[in-house]
Amino acid sequence: MTINIQRLLNRLNTLGKIGRDSQDRLARIALTHADKEGRDQVYQWFESAELDIKIDKIGNIHAIWSPESVQEEEAIMMGSHIDTVLNAGIYDGNYGVLAGLEVIQHLQEMGFQPKRPIVVSIFTNEEGARYTPDMMGSLVYVGGLALNDALKTRGNDGSILGDELERIGYSGDHEVGFIPAKAYIELHIEQGPVLEKENITVGAVENLQGICWQQITINGTANHAGTTPMSMRNDAGMACARVMTYMRDYVEQTCDRMVTTFGKLKFEPDIINVVPSQACFTIDLRSPDELKLKQAEAVLVDYLNLIAEEESVEIGMTQMARLEPVTFDLDLVQLIEKSAKELELTVCRMTSGAGHDAQMMARICPAAMIFVPSAKGISHNPREYTSAEDLNAGVKVLLRTIKQLACH
Amino acid sequence: MTINIQRLLNRLNTLGKIGRDSQDRLARIALTHADKEGRDQVYQWFESAELDIKIDKIGNIHAIWSPESVQEEEAIMMGSHIDTVLNAGIYDGNYGVLAGLEVIQHLQEMGFQPKRPIVVSIFTNEEGARYTPDMMGSLVYVGGLALNDALKTRGNDGSILGDELERIGYSGDHEVGFIPAKAYIELHIEQGPVLEKENITVGAVENLQGICWQQITINGTANHAGTTPMSMRNDAGMACARVMTYMRDYVEQTCDRMVTTFGKLKFEPDIINVVPSQACFTIDLRSPDELKLKQAEAVLVDYLNLIAEEESVEIGMTQMARLEPVTFDLDLVQLIEKSAKELELTVCRMTSGAGHDAQMMARICPAAMIFVPSAKGISHNPREYTSAEDLNAGVKVLLRTIKQLACH
Repeated sequence: MTINIQRLLNRLNTLGKIGRDSQDRLARIALTHADKEGRDQVYQWFESAELDIKIDKIGNIHAIWSPESVQEEEAIMMGSHIDTVLNAGIYDGNYGVLAGLEVIQHLQEMGFQPKRPIVVSIFTNEEGARYTPDMMGSLVYVGGLALNDALKTRGNDGSILGDELERIGYSGDHEVGFIPAKAYIELHIEQGPVLEKENITVGAVENLQGICWQQITINGTANHAGTTPMSMRNDAGMACARVMTYMRDYVEQTCDRMVTTFGKLKFEPDIINVVPSQACFTIDLRSPDELKLKQAEAVLVDYLNLIAEEESVEIGMTQMARLEPVTFDLDLVQLIEKSAKELELTVCRMTSGAGHDAQMMARICPAAMIFVPSAKGISHNPREYTSAEDLNAGVKVLLRTIKQLACH
Repeated sequence: MTINIQRLLNRLNTLGKIGRDSQDRLARIALTHADKEGRDQVYQWFESAELDIKIDKIGNIHAIWSPESVQEEEAIMMGSHIDTVLNAGIYDGNYGVLAGLEVIQHLQEMGFQPKRPIVVSIFTNEEGARYTPDMMGSLVYVGGLALNDALKTRGNDGSILGDELERIGYSGDHEVGFIPAKAYIELHIEQGPVLEKENITVGAVENLQGICWQQITINGTANHAGTTPMSMRNDAGMACARVMTYMRDYVEQTCDRMVTTFGKLKFEPDIINVVPSQACFTIDLRSPDELKLKQAEAVLVDYLNLIAEEESVEIGMTQMARLEPVTFDLDLVQLIEKSAKELELTVCRMTSGAGHDAQMMARICPAAMIFVPSAKGISHNPREYTSAEDLNAGVKVLLRTIKQLACH
């Protein structure tokens, strides 16, 4: 008996039409009316599968399949989010939620008797497009952020999260973290190019990168581009370029999954014939290995000191974010690999470069993730795409994994 | 008999007070009312020295000292400009004009009998702060730009140059280039740090850098900073940083007076966790040696091609400006050096990194320049400063040089 992939695709497409703005951009920003409409739709699908739907105090929706005899057991949880960024694609998050529902419905239709409750959860405000921090619903759920602090969060539109939660009718009565969990599995599109480039269908995600965001400001001297000899400059822009190329070389030489990105950069005074007096830029450093991330941070500091001396510039650095890597549960990762292989799908272990609710859930129970390919690695964009075949493969792996976890 | 340095300083300070805006910034932008007020003041000083003042059709003012017996001879010309940028210093340009006047008055007061007319000229719109191109008055004067085209120039405030020239009363009757010239000497502040750093008082300017301005656009792919491995990126920002450091190294290794500046840079989308899809930046390359400038341009093109391949990015380049170097007259440069040495002043040959009216005048007669130190190399800024002692030294060298040229 095969997965009803058409039902899943139909639901993805239906949900993808909900919350379009006047320019037809998908914009189900957390706790807006668009988000409410999306929640209402999925809620209705949960109801049609006769699931026991419970909403907690941060607005996470938990759809529980729990035959009477197993209600006391620790649950097998699946989940993700259905809020989106502005001008989003239709797969990010939504796929994990609707695939979880599909898995439960398929098991119901097969007459499967689970030994534990099986749950699919929708976590509030994963994207952080309106309220900071992102992954907030799962963070609050696992106790990483106090509920009351989260409810008081002021959005970038001035709104208060708790008020908006009440307004859209998704402020629930259940305490956060109320479901005793045996395991959490999140199925997600990769949002990166690795699986497609390597021609592999399934990623068994074994860890999630730690992140270090620094803002670096280099102050030199604005000088005339014609009258100032090279040896008499304090060129903030050139110092910045040296930091960029050095850190790129360093990261490439680590032969790790470490990555570094210099995404944001501004010169002052930004005039063609004036040596830059200031370069203000960001570095995004990520590694699944905390030790290597710390080493890279130390290398950066050492090099900035060297550059400050060699280029006669002043350098300041401000940490904007720092998250330790997350290691997922090895048994679950192996189970996912095994499930994929039994289904004769190509599979590899990989690192998640993006943040996911699974990293929060990993704090309270064994957790892991399943990735399927993203065409060209594109996400957070209407061109986000995963083929029906790959979507199907992902659900099959999830199904097999959940079934295995729920049968004893 | 020594130069009347106090008269020169008083005039510099008086002129420096004319054309202040509401924020007390010096802003004698070409052909504004402020420029008119400055011209009126200097005109009056010219009159008080009983000079024959002639205004040409592009508004250049020529103050001529021409005893009757020498009127048919080729003139010795001095000059510079009195228009300024916004928030300017008081020395740039003004010093050359007022020192020229001081030299003539001193020679008059000494009872010197010149064998040729001696002229000090004020050239229109040297700065180009309102009308492009800069150095326009001298460019038109030497026939490098047609008068009618210049008069039709539309300013960045929408005004027409010819209308403004009429409005402020400085549209003259004399044809441009009407003075037969034997030589042109321009005294100017260095606007760079070399003389001060080298502890030398006088620069005998032997040439003026050729300039190449290119705008370079590198197109890569915007990718997620976490999910995209280093090997799968087309990082436009990193390609840009490599071009910057490579060209800097190349220029430093030429052991020439070549300089390069990357002054303007913009990333797209300029987001901390997105690999830049585009880097748009400028390169300013300068050398007094046309051959070396051409070599550097070729090296740049070759390297861009290499980078395009290595980084899998597309690179476009647009030339924004290209001026060949100017070589000044060797006899005049040697005469300046000799004058400085006879005055027991330290002197060195140097290259002008900025543009000056002298480079235009060099097209119609032997020309050269004299530089004096700029504190910290600062110019186009209220902090522009040259000590009275250095100002005095410059006028003395100019006087000695002009006297020598005018005595046979």
